[in-house]
Amino acid sequence: MKIDLRSDTVTRPTPGMLEAMFSAPVGDDVFGEDPTVAALEAKTAALFGKEAGLFCPSGTMTNQIAARVHARPGEEVILHKLSHVYYYEAGGLMSNSGLSVCLLEGDRGRITAKDVADHINPDDLHRPRTAMTEVENTMNKGGGAVYSNQELAAIGEVCRNNGLKYHLDGARVFNALAVTGQSTRECGALFDSISICLSKGLGAPVGSVLLGDHEFIRRARRVRKVFGGGMRQAGYLAAAGIYAIDHHVERLKEDHRRARQLGEALQQLQWVSEVLPVDTNIVIFKVKEPLTASMVTGKLAEEGVLAIDFDRQSVRLVTHLDFTENMLDQTIDIIRQLKF
Amino acid sequence: MKIDLRSDTVTRPTPGMLEAMFSAPVGDDVFGEDPTVAALEAKTAALFGKEAGLFCPSGTMTNQIAARVHARPGEEVILHKLSHVYYYEAGGLMSNSGLSVCLLEGDRGRITAKDVADHINPDDLHRPRTAMTEVENTMNKGGGAVYSNQELAAIGEVCRNNGLKYHLDGARVFNALAVTGQSTRECGALFDSISICLSKGLGAPVGSVLLGDHEFIRRARRVRKVFGGGMRQAGYLAAAGIYAIDHHVERLKEDHRRARQLGEALQQLQWVSEVLPVDTNIVIFKVKEPLTASMVTGKLAEEGVLAIDFDRQSVRLVTHLDFTENMLDQTIDIIRQLKF
Amino acid sequence: MKIDLRSDTVTRPTPGMLEAMFSAPVGDDVFGEDPTVAALEAKTAALFGKEAGLFCPSGTMTNQIAARVHARPGEEVILHKLSHVYYYEAGGLMSNSGLSVCLLEGDRGRITAKDVADHINPDDLHRPRTAMTEVENTMNKGGGAVYSNQELAAIGEVCRNNGLKYHLDGARVFNALAVTGQSTRECGALFDSISICLSKGLGAPVGSVLLGDHEFIRRARRVRKVFGGGMRQAGYLAAAGIYAIDHHVERLKEDHRRARQLGEALQQLQWVSEVLPVDTNIVIFKVKEPLTASMVTGKLAEEGVLAIDFDRQSVRLVTHLDFTENMLDQTIDIIRQLKF
Amino acid sequence: MKIDLRSDTVTRPTPGMLEAMFSAPVGDDVFGEDPTVAALEAKTAALFGKEAGLFCPSGTMTNQIAARVHARPGEEVILHKLSHVYYYEAGGLMSNSGLSVCLLEGDRGRITAKDVADHINPDDLHRPRTAMTEVENTMNKGGGAVYSNQELAAIGEVCRNNGLKYHLDGARVFNALAVTGQSTRECGALFDSISICLSKGLGAPVGSVLLGDHEFIRRARRVRKVFGGGMRQAGYLAAAGIYAIDHHVERLKEDHRRARQLGEALQQLQWVSEVLPVDTNIVIFKVKEPLTASMVTGKLAEEGVLAIDFDRQSVRLVTHLDFTENMLDQTIDIIRQLKF
Repeated sequence: MKIDLRSDTVTRPTPGMLEAMFSAPVGDDVFGEDPTVAALEAKTAALFGKEAGLFCPSGTMTNQIAARVHARPGEEVILHKLSHVYYYEAGGLMSNSGLSVCLLEGDRGRITAKDVADHINPDDLHRPRTAMTEVENTMNKGGGAVYSNQELAAIGEVCRNNGLKYHLDGARVFNALAVTGQSTRECGALFDSISICLSKGLGAPVGSVLLGDHEFIRRARRVRKVFGGGMRQAGYLAAAGIYAIDHHVERLKEDHRRARQLGEALQQLQWVSEVLPVDTNIVIFKVKEPLTASMVTGKLAEEGVLAIDFDRQSVRLVTHLDFTENMLDQTIDIIRQLKF
Repeated sequence: MKIDLRSDTVTRPTPGMLEAMFSAPVGDDVFGEDPTVAALEAKTAALFGKEAGLFCPSGTMTNQIAARVHARPGEEVILHKLSHVYYYEAGGLMSNSGLSVCLLEGDRGRITAKDVADHINPDDLHRPRTAMTEVENTMNKGGGAVYSNQELAAIGEVCRNNGLKYHLDGARVFNALAVTGQSTRECGALFDSISICLSKGLGAPVGSVLLGDHEFIRRARRVRKVFGGGMRQAGYLAAAGIYAIDHHVERLKEDHRRARQLGEALQQLQWVSEVLPVDTNIVIFKVKEPLTASMVTGKLAEEGVLAIDFDRQSVRLVTHLDFTENMLDQTIDIIRQLKF
Repeated sequence: MKIDLRSDTVTRPTPGMLEAMFSAPVGDDVFGEDPTVAALEAKTAALFGKEAGLFCPSGTMTNQIAARVHARPGEEVILHKLSHVYYYEAGGLMSNSGLSVCLLEGDRGRITAKDVADHINPDDLHRPRTAMTEVENTMNKGGGAVYSNQELAAIGEVCRNNGLKYHLDGARVFNALAVTGQSTRECGALFDSISICLSKGLGAPVGSVLLGDHEFIRRARRVRKVFGGGMRQAGYLAAAGIYAIDHHVERLKEDHRRARQLGEALQQLQWVSEVLPVDTNIVIFKVKEPLTASMVTGKLAEEGVLAIDFDRQSVRLVTHLDFTENMLDQTIDIIRQLKF
Repeated sequence: MKIDLRSDTVTRPTPGMLEAMFSAPVGDDVFGEDPTVAALEAKTAALFGKEAGLFCPSGTMTNQIAARVHARPGEEVILHKLSHVYYYEAGGLMSNSGLSVCLLEGDRGRITAKDVADHINPDDLHRPRTAMTEVENTMNKGGGAVYSNQELAAIGEVCRNNGLKYHLDGARVFNALAVTGQSTRECGALFDSISICLSKGLGAPVGSVLLGDHEFIRRARRVRKVFGGGMRQAGYLAAAGIYAIDHHVERLKEDHRRARQLGEALQQLQWVSEVLPVDTNIVIFKVKEPLTASMVTGKLAEEGVLAIDFDRQSVRLVTHLDFTENMLDQTIDIIRQLKF
């Protein structure tokens, strides 16, 4: 049996979720007639206190749509240089929307209100107009780092004061809220738009929801059409999302606890040079030279544990719905017995 | 009970299809690990004799990807002015890919080899380089018109001789093949790329497959990622596609026969001025002034029959998997009894 | 000696214009410090009653900038299918700005208010939002056809009523005004933006001016920078433009009269099948089969008269500042003596 | 009298250059018939040993064209985060060409072969394909820093080995060659394309030339048309370029010597915290807090010396053709007498 810690995207639906999916009423959502899709969009919007939602095939699409709606070609987005939307979306900000990027640095992938304020371009023909700021919470490349509520609010204030749109890549926003205790409505009030992923910690097979006000979602729906993201009887997928929100949010804390235990176990190993702070369900650790990440993930794979080499020296483990207590014990045993 | 003839996209999965979906093995397709998605891609590629396939959320996406891979910004696509990719995809050729369009006219939405040859731009700085030709078969806005095999081949020869890529929007290609008797492999040999829709006549809930050679699909996969069309456990949807190809191709002839019968019934009505030739599963008829299409679809809706007003005077009916023999009889009765 | 009737762009500056260029005060216009550029921009803006102007290297650039400012990617421009901005600008609307085009037909390249109104897209996700209408006056591909003031006003009203921007490609607008008698200010009041060419009938060597309100020009200046159209000591070119407006507008009527005389001479020839109405300085005539346009322009070139074959059967002649009365007589003689 | 040290773009033509401009033979370059433009393109191409050249209105346009020809939307350019093409061209890489950027750091704006090699993206769907590397020499934001020939060659080797195009923004390449002693042909051999500016140190009023092989320039000419950079009788401007190359290259060393003298004078001042190394004609110095750059440039302006505040604490001075020995003495006197 494999223990798959490569990502929280690898989960398969539980029997309950599968049951919900295949008993869902569906319709042609291109005609606006899929009741389950409509229910998911309404439910998530209400949860975060936003006016409307839009179900999309992926979080990449929800992020890409938000940028295309918020900004025009030749305008600039401020974001961390390791943010998913720049680092993992294959240049979509540029090729889909013609947007320039202002790439900030910052602790574990998090930007600060001060840095945003310092990087808004002056009114100068040579420089793109700054139109938007984007934060990712939790921050994947930062090892699941969580923003403080204060910093998010402070960035929002800079945005409002300077006419910038403020987008949250909330692929793992429920993991963040589980740590900060912020409510979904408080979170929703901070941003112009939010992208929520259903197929990561929440365990649904496919899909993300984009949230915003009516006008934003009206325009987002049009961009979804242009990308080809409009689906017909998508209610089967949406039903999994509804089930996930009803049943899988509370349990994220278990994933976090297991991730912490993994981190603690790793910290005691001689061949590990550093374990990044484990805030949520992501564990990133560095291995000592001459070991490399790929040597470690190779060895782990032989023992049935799948992990990802994040860069030359870093390995990433992600806990999730299908990673049980029993698997946790096994994984710790396996890691401890690795010999290099 | 409603009889929904607005489109062949409104079908809901049969119990057999639902069972296939429900029991499909799935995995994370972003990691390339969903066996059902892989099986669907391989199956459709083999069917049409192409090297590879790519499962996407919609036919709009498969068409948009094909154009972005085949041509560069500032190049031109030759296609009919009523083709779906220009007329119904919200300007995607331009906004996704920066492509110019050369819009041809032609009988019931079909272009000719001669017209393509006559519209390839000369090597002149003022004119975009012609890079691609696109045909749609069957042709939706042309009332489900079918191309002759000869014309498709002749257009292909013009393309090859002039270095143009040749794309088939085969949203309803199985309907076309049911009429011409051409095999899928013969069809596949004509084109550089083909877009096949699973959620129209085939009755699957969601998805299309893009077909081409390995290099084309390798680049298409990258564009799908940029649009956000990569899905995680998409095997549930792909399973419906496999089932549809196995079980719902042969029966398309029934849809065609029922469409013909609807057409014949309409032709006898005083308030109908013209019924377009019914080649496949689409019936377009025009109503006599002062009647308008929307007056007729309004009346039909009151009687429980849903249709679409295609333009001011034209109404479209589409037969499909969920439109039974019994419904056919009812529909004809209802239409005959309409009073204006 | 050659008589060059290929275009009114082939003129060389007169001694007076050259003197004006040579003695112009200049500065670095990227710093906004070229007094002659500023004077040209102010002068043309005042002439047409617009708030501001922007000097650019070409009319293609002024047209392309206007579209990029007025509309966003995925929106649609209504224009004649033979308009310069679609037909001769190498797909720039699409590749520079991601715009869809709605291509109208119409007498000699002119569109009508009714056609514009009929082609504004409904609020439907599948269709691009219609954002802009563009007319070209005089209409090059229509043989220098001139719009009536009434039609231009009627189109403007359709635009205003539907929230569309209204752009005039006025590459030869002074030729049009010479016919209709409309004042430049009346003309300016009709449009949101106007592109004026200095290097056609006006006889300046390089450049066009884009006119509009302050906000439009502010944004246009930014797009000019992005295209690389900002020039340093451009006053030498601008000086020619100022001279041209002061000295070469009145004399356009001479070009028109000479063009008419050419047209009348052509009408009497056996091998000419048709001469399009000669409204301004462009003469388009068709030759009888089996003659082709290129056979005729080839023969003319042997005799020292340069013309352009516009399509297979059509030849274009354009009169201009460097085409004298003496040359007119010679040209008519040469044409009359051609033997086929 | 003003002493303008804001940029080397502020120069006005010398009498000799003006004479050359206004006696130049010209023609319609859109028809390829301006002999002076053709001569400039041929001359610069030969000088750098490239097959062909293209005259454009600005260096921004030559850079933007090069990127659009070398790379497709969704591909990535590696370049320094302070390079002109990213920092000062208003997001053109993204909005004109849909390109992603990989922004390197590095001493005084210069990147290294090692850094380029380390930042070529792996073959991973999530990451843009790396298509191109761009260097700027001399490096404006780095205070006119010059690359070593070895580093440029080493970067070229990384590019060739990895299938990347290699573009030189040579806005001030003649300044660089004056320092390294490399010949223009040696320089030309290193790059796939080079952008040369005529209106900076060379003292021409307008224009840049893009160099490359025949196929590259053929495609570049098409992009120039799409941007609207094609000009008619542009020979007046090209003549200044020819004159500049013939007469103003050797004298760049004077500008460098004067810049060094300015730098040495500045180094002795108490209120100056640092003078960047002065390699060429650009002097960047930092002022001690609480002084700011704008306070210093304000004071200088009162004394008739114009300079630019480059960032909060940095001031830039640029020497050039119109900055005489006499002005140098005056400037040093004025600077020394400033009181804060």
